Amino acid sequence: MLKTHSCGQLRREHIGQTVTLAGWVNRRRDMGGVIFIDLRDRAGKTQAVVDAGRTPAGFAAAEGVRGEFVVQLTGVVAARPAGQANANLPTGEIEVLVDQVVILNSAKTIPFPIDRDDAVDEMTRLRYRYLDLRRERMQRNLILRHNAVKFIRDFLCARDFIEVETPILFKSTPEGARDYLVPSRVHPGKFYALPQSPQQLKQLLMVAGYERYFQIARCFRDEDLRADRQPEFTQLDMEMSFVERDDVLNLIEELILGMVGAVSLVPPADTHFARLSYAEATGRFGTDRPDLRFGLELKDISDIVASSAFRVFTENVAAGKPVKAICAPGCATYSRREVDELEEMARGQGAKALAWLAIQPDTGEMRGPIAKFFTVDQLIAITERLEAKPGDLILISSDKKSVVHNVLHTLRTELARRLGLADRKVLAFAWVIDFPLFEEEMEEGHYAPSHHMFTAPKPEHIPLLDTDPGAVLSQQYDLVCNGFEVAGGSIRIHDQGLQAKIMSLIGFSMEQAREQFGHLLEAFEFGAPPHGGIAPGIDRLVALMAGEPNIREVMAFPKTAQATDLMADAPSYVLSRQLDDLHLALKDKPEKAA
Amino acid sequence: MLKTHSCGQLRREHIGQTVTLAGWVNRRRDMGGVIFIDLRDRAGKTQAVVDAGRTPAGFAAAEGVRGEFVVQLTGVVAARPAGQANANLPTGEIEVLVDQVVILNSAKTIPFPIDRDDAVDEMTRLRYRYLDLRRERMQRNLILRHNAVKFIRDFLCARDFIEVETPILFKSTPEGARDYLVPSRVHPGKFYALPQSPQQLKQLLMVAGYERYFQIARCFRDEDLRADRQPEFTQLDMEMSFVERDDVLNLIEELILGMVGAVSLVPPADTHFARLSYAEATGRFGTDRPDLRFGLELKDISDIVASSAFRVFTENVAAGKPVKAICAPGCATYSRREVDELEEMARGQGAKALAWLAIQPDTGEMRGPIAKFFTVDQLIAITERLEAKPGDLILISSDKKSVVHNVLHTLRTELARRLGLADRKVLAFAWVIDFPLFEEEMEEGHYAPSHHMFTAPKPEHIPLLDTDPGAVLSQQYDLVCNGFEVAGGSIRIHDQGLQAKIMSLIGFSMEQAREQFGHLLEAFEFGAPPHGGIAPGIDRLVALMAGEPNIREVMAFPKTAQATDLMADAPSYVLSRQLDDLHLALKDKPEKAA
Repeated sequence: MLKTHSCGQLRREHIGQTVTLAGWVNRRRDMGGVIFIDLRDRAGKTQAVVDAGRTPAGFAAAEGVRGEFVVQLTGVVAARPAGQANANLPTGEIEVLVDQVVILNSAKTIPFPIDRDDAVDEMTRLRYRYLDLRRERMQRNLILRHNAVKFIRDFLCARDFIEVETPILFKSTPEGARDYLVPSRVHPGKFYALPQSPQQLKQLLMVAGYERYFQIARCFRDEDLRADRQPEFTQLDMEMSFVERDDVLNLIEELILGMVGAVSLVPPADTHFARLSYAEATGRFGTDRPDLRFGLELKDISDIVASSAFRVFTENVAAGKPVKAICAPGCATYSRREVDELEEMARGQGAKALAWLAIQPDTGEMRGPIAKFFTVDQLIAITERLEAKPGDLILISSDKKSVVHNVLHTLRTELARRLGLADRKVLAFAWVIDFPLFEEEMEEGHYAPSHHMFTAPKPEHIPLLDTDPGAVLSQQYDLVCNGFEVAGGSIRIHDQGLQAKIMSLIGFSMEQAREQFGHLLEAFEFGAPPHGGIAPGIDRLVALMAGEPNIREVMAFPKTAQATDLMADAPSYVLSRQLDDLHLALKDKPEKAA
Repeated sequence: MLKTHSCGQLRREHIGQTVTLAGWVNRRRDMGGVIFIDLRDRAGKTQAVVDAGRTPAGFAAAEGVRGEFVVQLTGVVAARPAGQANANLPTGEIEVLVDQVVILNSAKTIPFPIDRDDAVDEMTRLRYRYLDLRRERMQRNLILRHNAVKFIRDFLCARDFIEVETPILFKSTPEGARDYLVPSRVHPGKFYALPQSPQQLKQLLMVAGYERYFQIARCFRDEDLRADRQPEFTQLDMEMSFVERDDVLNLIEELILGMVGAVSLVPPADTHFARLSYAEATGRFGTDRPDLRFGLELKDISDIVASSAFRVFTENVAAGKPVKAICAPGCATYSRREVDELEEMARGQGAKALAWLAIQPDTGEMRGPIAKFFTVDQLIAITERLEAKPGDLILISSDKKSVVHNVLHTLRTELARRLGLADRKVLAFAWVIDFPLFEEEMEEGHYAPSHHMFTAPKPEHIPLLDTDPGAVLSQQYDLVCNGFEVAGGSIRIHDQGLQAKIMSLIGFSMEQAREQFGHLLEAFEFGAPPHGGIAPGIDRLVALMAGEPNIREVMAFPKTAQATDLMADAPSYVLSRQLDDLHLALKDKPEKAA
C-alpha cells in the first residue's frame, strides 16, 4: 500500500507517529517558506505542512503541486498550534509535518470546483462524471446506496431468502413497455430482449421450489423519455411461496423501516405504514400514489351542489359525474393570472374548465364567477366541507371521475409546491391496496389488467368474475412514498382455471398466451405453489433517503433524458462489419465505414 | 403463511405439536387405509401419514394426490414407530399424523424424476429448467452460489470496499471479443453495447476517488461458441487505488481461501497459493493456466539430444527450437492406435509429428522409431531427466516454443484424464505472475498487449521499452485453479507519458485511442491515482467449489452452446414494427409480420 493511514483517520492519539498518506490535493496554500496542503481521500481530509526548513526537497516538490494532483506525503503527526484546531474537521486537531513529498500524478485544471457544493450545469457534470463523483455529495449518495443495498441483502439473507441471478439476454414479449432488443449473430433475424423485470423468471423460481427468492436486478425499458426516467434501473426483485398478502406487506414494511433507520438521511414520518384502499387513495388524493406529507385533500361536494342553480354541476351530478374540490389555504388573493395558470393546468389534465370560490380575507365574502349560483347555505356547506377559512381559495372540478381526480391531484401537487407544504426532510410511506383487477376503461371491448395478467383477484371476489368483472378487486399492493410509487407487487394466480378465465376476460386467446408466456403457463401445470412478490425500486428509494430530487443523483453513470451517456458518448455508430455480423442493415442512415 | 414449519425443521422436540406444512409431494405410498406422503420443500422432507381412520376426508383427498402435487398438511408431530426411524433424514425420527389435507395445486406427470439423481438429457433439463431446478443437485448448487457471493460481499464490505453499479447499456469498443449491440430507438443508426466487463468504468471510479470498488458484475461476450462458454457471465469486478501488486494478491488469496473454507464442497489443496512466473508455468506445464493437481511436467531435453544422430532434433536445437518431453507413467504398452491418437492430438496443436520412446516394462529396453538415433548414454540421460521408469512412455515434441508448449500441455491434460490423475475432490490454486507485457508474435509489425493496453510494466523494466520491448514483463497476475483461469488482473498504467509510449508500441495512434478510449484518457489527465484490480469469474469458481464439470450447472437459467434459452425460446423473431422503431431491416430473413 502506498499509504499507512487514510486522510480521515488521524487523531490526537496518533501524535508523534510517522505516517504516509496518499490522496488528492484538495487545497494548497503557499504561506512563504511553508506550504499547507489539505490532502483528501475517500475517508476525509488531513492538513499537511511542508516546511522548507524541515524538507527543502519536499518543499521544492510541493511548489509544483496544484489542486487535484495526486500526492504521497510522509511525515510526523503533530498537534496543531494553539488556536488553530478546526472543530469542523474530524482530523482538525492534528496536522502532518511533512518530511517527504512524492507526486504520484499531476492534474489539469478541473472544469468545476470539487471541494465546494457549487451549482454546476448538469450536462457538464455528466460529461465529466468521474470528476463529479469526487464531490462530497456524490460520494455520500453512492455510499448511502451501497449501504442501503447491503442492508437489504443482509436482512433478506437472515430470513432465508436466496439471491438468484437471472438472465439479461432474454425473450421479447410485446406487452407493457417497449423492449430493448439485442440482435443475435448466431440466429439470423432473431433477437434477445433485455428484461423489463425478471417477473416471469421469479415466478418460475417459485415453481422450481425456491420459496424465498430475491435479486438486486437490473431492468430495462425503452420508454418515451421523461425528466426522471432512466433506460436502465435497479429493483429489489423478490417473490415468496406459501404466503398471503399481509405476509409480504409486513416483511417489506419491516425491511424498509429497518433500512431507513440504518442508512437514511431523511427520517420516516411514522413507525408504521398507513394502508389505504385504492378507492380511498384516489378519492382523497386523486391518485393511487398520494403524497401524504400534506393535506389539501379532495372533498366531494356533489350532494351540496346537486340542487344548486349552477346547471353544469346539477347536470353532471345527475349523470353520475362527481363535483370535487380542494382548498388552497391563503390563496384567496390570487390574481386573475395566477388562477388562469391553475385552470390551464386543469385543462392539461382534460378538464373543460376550473371553477373557483375565493373567501375574502377580511369579510369572509365569497368571490368568483360561479358564486352567484349558490345559496348562502350552500356556500356555508361547501366551506365547512372543505374546512376553508377566510383567505382560502376553493378549486372545484366536475367531470367524469378519472378526469376530476387527475385535475385535482395535479392542482394539489402544484399548490403544495407553491406553498412549500411538501417537507423534503420526511418520508411519508403508505400501502395502497385493494386495486381493481381491471382498468376502468375497456380496450377494444375487453378488460385490461390494471397490474398484469398474473395478479390474483381477492378470493372472495372470484365469483364476481362471472357477473361483474369491473367490480373485482385484486391482491395487488403498491408502496408509495412522497408521491412516488416505490414498490409494486401482488399475490399471483397459481390456478390454471382461474388464469384461463382472466385471460379470456382480457381478450387473450390461449394461442396468443402460449406464444408469449408458453413456458410460464406450462410450468404452472407441473405443481405451482401459491406465491406472491413485490419489486421496490432501488434508485427512487435511495434518492428519497438521500433527499435528492432525481434518481440521476444516486446513480454512478446515469444517462440523460435523451438516453445518452455524455461521458463515454453512447450510443454511438458501429462498424459496418459489426452490422453485417448481425445480419442487419440500417434503414435511414449509413453506418460508419469499416 | 400457509405453513407453520418447513419440511426440514421438525425434530423430536416438536412431538405433540400441531403443525401445518406445505410443499411438494416427493413420494406417495398407498398402504391400504393409510397413505404415506413424503412432503418436500426447500428445507427438506417430512413423512406425513394420512390415516383413513383419523381423517376420512383427508384420506379421500390424499387418494387423488400424485407426485409433485402441491399440498398443505395439518397434523400432529409424532415419533415414528419403533424401528422405523430413518437415520439418513434429518426429520427421520418423526412423522406427522395428518388431520387435514388441502390440495393447493395439481401437477401433470413430470418428464423426469425429481427425487433421484438420474442422468437426464441436458436438453430436456434446460427445456424444463423450472423442474430441473427442483432437484437436490441444482438447489445445492444455487444455494452454494448464493452463499459464495454473500461471503464475498461481506468480506469486501468489512474491508471498506463499496459496491457501485455500472451501466449495462454502454459503448461499443471494437477491441477484444465481439460486443453484443443494442440498437437505439431515439438515436437512429446508433448502438449501445453490453459491457464485456466494467474495465473502463472501474478505472474511472478510481479517478473519481472511490479507492476500493467492487461489483458482482454481469458481463457479455458474443464469442464463437465453445462447450463451456456462456453469452453472459458474472464476475467479481474489483479495483483498488494506492496499491501494489502484492496488496491485490494477498487480499484475493485471503478472500478466496475464506470463501472456500466457508462454502466449498471441495477443499483447497493448500492453505497458501503458489506463485509461478509465466516463464515457469509455461516451461513446466506448457500453459499459463496449469493444472497443479498432478505432475507429468514438461522437461527440456534439448541439451541431451543436441549432439544426437537425430537430425530433426539437432537442427531444431541449432535453430533455437526446444526439444521437450513428458513421461506418461505405465503407458509403454500403448498400442500403435493409442500412440497414433496422441500424435493426432499433437498435430491438432500444430506439431508436424510426435516422437516417442517406450521403456519396456520387463527389460527396460527403449522401443520406438527414433530410439536407434540415440546412444545408450543419451537414452539414460533422457530417462533420468524425465524420472521415467520401466513401463513408462516418453512423448517428445520439438518445434518453436509455443507449439511445443501447446502440444505437450494438450497431451499432459489428455494423459491425466486417461490415467485419472486430476482429482475432482481438490482445488489446486496458484498465481501466475510476471507475464510478458506483449505477445511474442507481432501483429502487423506492432506489439500486441498480452493482457490489455492499460496493464503496467514492471517498474524496473520500463527502460527496456526503448531497447527491447519484447523482454518487458508486466504487472499482470492470473489466478489459476485446476487448469482454469479463475481470475485475471493487473496494476494499471496511471502515467500518461507511459501510456502514450505503450500505445505507440502497439500501433495505436493517439487519434484512434481518443476515439475509443477518449473519456478514459481524458480522465487520466485530471489526477489519476496509482491503481490495480482483478476480476475473479464467479461461475467458474462456484462450479469448481460445487465439483461440477461445467458452469451451466451453477447458473439458474443458462443458455445452450448455440446461445439459446430452450425454456423461453430466446432469441426469437420480433414484430416488424419493433424493427421499424429501431430503424433497422433484416438482411437475410423476413421478420415476423406485424
